[in-house]
Amino acid sequence: MNHAVPDGILTPAIMIDVDVLDRNIQRMASSMLSRGLRLRPHVKTHKTLEIAAKQLAAGAVGLTVATIGEAEVFAAGGATDIFIAYPLWVEAHHAERLRKLASTCAITVGTDSAESATAMGRQLGADARSIDVLIEVDSGHHRSGVLPGEVVDVARAAAASGLNIAGVFTFPGHSYKPGMPRDAAGNENDALGRASAALERAGFEVRTISGGSTPTALLDAETLATELRPGVYVFGDAQQLELERCTWDDIALTVAATVVSRHESDGGNIRRVVVDAGSKILGSDRPDWATGYGRLPEYREARITALSEHHATVVWPDSEELPALGTRLRLIPNHVCLAMNLVDEVTVVREGAVVDTWRVAARGRNN
Amino acid sequence: MNHAVPDGILTPAIMIDVDVLDRNIQRMASSMLSRGLRLRPHVKTHKTLEIAAKQLAAGAVGLTVATIGEAEVFAAGGATDIFIAYPLWVEAHHAERLRKLASTCAITVGTDSAESATAMGRQLGADARSIDVLIEVDSGHHRSGVLPGEVVDVARAAAASGLNIAGVFTFPGHSYKPGMPRDAAGNENDALGRASAALERAGFEVRTISGGSTPTALLDAETLATELRPGVYVFGDAQQLELERCTWDDIALTVAATVVSRHESDGGNIRRVVVDAGSKILGSDRPDWATGYGRLPEYREARITALSEHHATVVWPDSEELPALGTRLRLIPNHVCLAMNLVDEVTVVREGAVVDTWRVAARGRNN
Repeated sequence: MNHAVPDGILTPAIMIDVDVLDRNIQRMASSMLSRGLRLRPHVKTHKTLEIAAKQLAAGAVGLTVATIGEAEVFAAGGATDIFIAYPLWVEAHHAERLRKLASTCAITVGTDSAESATAMGRQLGADARSIDVLIEVDSGHHRSGVLPGEVVDVARAAAASGLNIAGVFTFPGHSYKPGMPRDAAGNENDALGRASAALERAGFEVRTISGGSTPTALLDAETLATELRPGVYVFGDAQQLELERCTWDDIALTVAATVVSRHESDGGNIRRVVVDAGSKILGSDRPDWATGYGRLPEYREARITALSEHHATVVWPDSEELPALGTRLRLIPNHVCLAMNLVDEVTVVREGAVVDTWRVAARGRNN
Repeated sequence: MNHAVPDGILTPAIMIDVDVLDRNIQRMASSMLSRGLRLRPHVKTHKTLEIAAKQLAAGAVGLTVATIGEAEVFAAGGATDIFIAYPLWVEAHHAERLRKLASTCAITVGTDSAESATAMGRQLGADARSIDVLIEVDSGHHRSGVLPGEVVDVARAAAASGLNIAGVFTFPGHSYKPGMPRDAAGNENDALGRASAALERAGFEVRTISGGSTPTALLDAETLATELRPGVYVFGDAQQLELERCTWDDIALTVAATVVSRHESDGGNIRRVVVDAGSKILGSDRPDWATGYGRLPEYREARITALSEHHATVVWPDSEELPALGTRLRLIPNHVCLAMNLVDEVTVVREGAVVDTWRVAARGRNN
C-alpha cells in the first residue's frame, strides 16, 4: 500500500508539498542574490497569494503576471510592484483598469510594436506617465517580440506617447527542448545585450533588462540581465524533470489519483492501469520530446501513454507488480501552470499530512 | 475589419452561436429518433444547464456525465435520469453521494471489474438496489473496459453485491483518428453485440446497450446499440472538422481573440500574428494528425502552429494580407470539452449580437 497520498484527500486533487516549495523558493532567491540579479517571479504558474507572499518574503523585488486580470488579483492581495509581461493591445477598458492598478501599485507593461505603444499611450492619455514600459525582444522563440535592431523605433513611439521606457525583456521559450537550455540562454543574453545597447545608444536610460525562464534562470552565470522572471521553479514538473532542469526531489506539486481500472497483459491487452486524473486536472501539454503526459514519482519507469478528460492510461513497468484497484498514486503533470489553472483550490501537505488549503485566487483570469 | 466578434466582448472569451447549437442538437436528436435509438448526450462537453435543457427538450432520454460532481450539478438543475459513464472505485464518501443522488434521480454507473462492483455494492449496502450498473466493454480504445468475453464475471459479482445489471456500454475512443470512425464504429458494434449476447446467455436481462461517440454516432446505421452518448456534436470543434465529422457551418463554439503582435516575414522571421488566446482558454489537446492547435473559420488556410498559455501563434497564408494589430478573430479549439472547462461563463450570440450569458455550472467538477 502506497501512503504518499494522505487519507481524506478526495482524488483527483492537487497537492503541494510545502517544504519542497519553500526550498525551491529559497534556492532560486539565493542564486539570484549571489549573482546580483533581481528576481521577479512569474506568478501565472501558481496564481496563489500564499505562494507569491513566500516569494516576496524571500527577496523577490516584485511579481510578473500575464494578464491585467492576474495583476488585479495580486494587487488586491497586497503586491506593490507588478510587471504584465505581455504585449497588450490596449483599448479603453484596458486603460481604465491599468489606471486603477497604477494608483496602488508600480505597473510595468510589455509592448512589441510602435503601433501598440502608440495605442496604449493614446488610451491612457495623461496617465501614460504613470506606466513603465519594457520592449519585448525576440531572442529565438519567434512568438512575440521585435528583433534587437527594432527596439529603438518602438521606444521612440512609446516615449512620444508619454510612456516611460524602462528597458527591454525577452522570453527564451525555445529553451523548452532537450539540449536547448544552454543555447537558448546564450541567445537570450545576446538579444538582451544588443537591444539594451541599441536603446542606450539612442539616448534612452535602460533601468531594466529582464530575462526568462526556469530552464535558463540558473544557467546565466554571466548574464547581462538585471532581473529574471522564472515561474515553474516553485513546483517543478515533468517537463523540467525530462529537461534535467529539476530533480525528483524538487517536485513540489503532484496530482493525487486513484486506480479505477487495471489490466494484466493476458488477452493481448496492454498491461496498464487507468487512474481518475485526466486532462481536466493534469492539462494536456505534451511536447514531442516528452516521454508521456506526466510522470509518477514512486514509479519512475511507468509512463502515461494516453490521456482523456478523466482517465490517464499508465503503462506499468514489467518489473513491477500492477497496483490494486483503489490504490492512490501521485502523478507529476507535464506543465504545472496548466494544472493549477484547472482547480479552485489546492491541498497543502507537509511530511505526508494535510496542513492547509490554498485558493487559486487568479484561476481563469484570462483577460 | 472583421465583425465576426461583436463589440463589447472582452477577449479572450468563448462565444456560442445559439442558432448553430440548436441546429446541431436537433440534427442529432432527429437522427436518433429516426433510427429508434435513445440519445443520452454526454454533458461533460458543455457542463451547462441551459444546453442540457435544450438536449432534453429535443428528446434526449437522460444525460451522461463523467463524475459524481457533474451528476450533482445536473441533478440539482432538474435532471431526473443520469448515467455516470465511468468505472468508479467507490469509497464511503462516494457511496454517500450516490445515495443522495439516487433519492431524486435515476442513477446508472459504470463498472469494469468484479472487484470494483463488489466494492461498490459493499459501500452502498442495502441501497445498492437503487443503482443501475452498465458494464464497460473495451471495443478497441484500450483504456478502461473488459473484453466482451469477461462481462459475465463482472455482472455476477455486481448482482451478488445487490446492484441491478442494466446492460453494457463502451466508448470507441479510437474513432478519433483520420480514417478510423467507420472501423471504430464496426468494432463498437461488434463488442457491444458480443458482450450483450454473453450477458443474455448467462441469464441477465439486457435493457441498455450504450455506445459512444460523436465521430461514430451518425455512422451506425445498423447499430446494435439501444442508446448513444455523443457529446461534442453540440458545438463541433477543429478535431471533428479535420476528421470530417462536422462542417464549418456546424461550428457553434469559437474563441474570440485579439491580434496583439504581428510579424511580416522580412528579417528572416516567420510571417505570423500572435493572438491573446492560448492554452488557458483553447486547451492544448493536439493529436499527432491535427494540422495545428485549432482553426480559424474566417481564414481557413491559417494554422495555429504554437500555443503558449496566453499566446497562439498563427502562421498566416501568403495569399492573405496580415491582419492589423487589434483585429478581432475567431478561433476554433481542437477539443471543445477542454475549452468549456477553462471558463466560468460563455457569451451567447445570435446573428452576430450578444443575447445571453450562460454559466459553466459544472466547470472543474473533477470528482
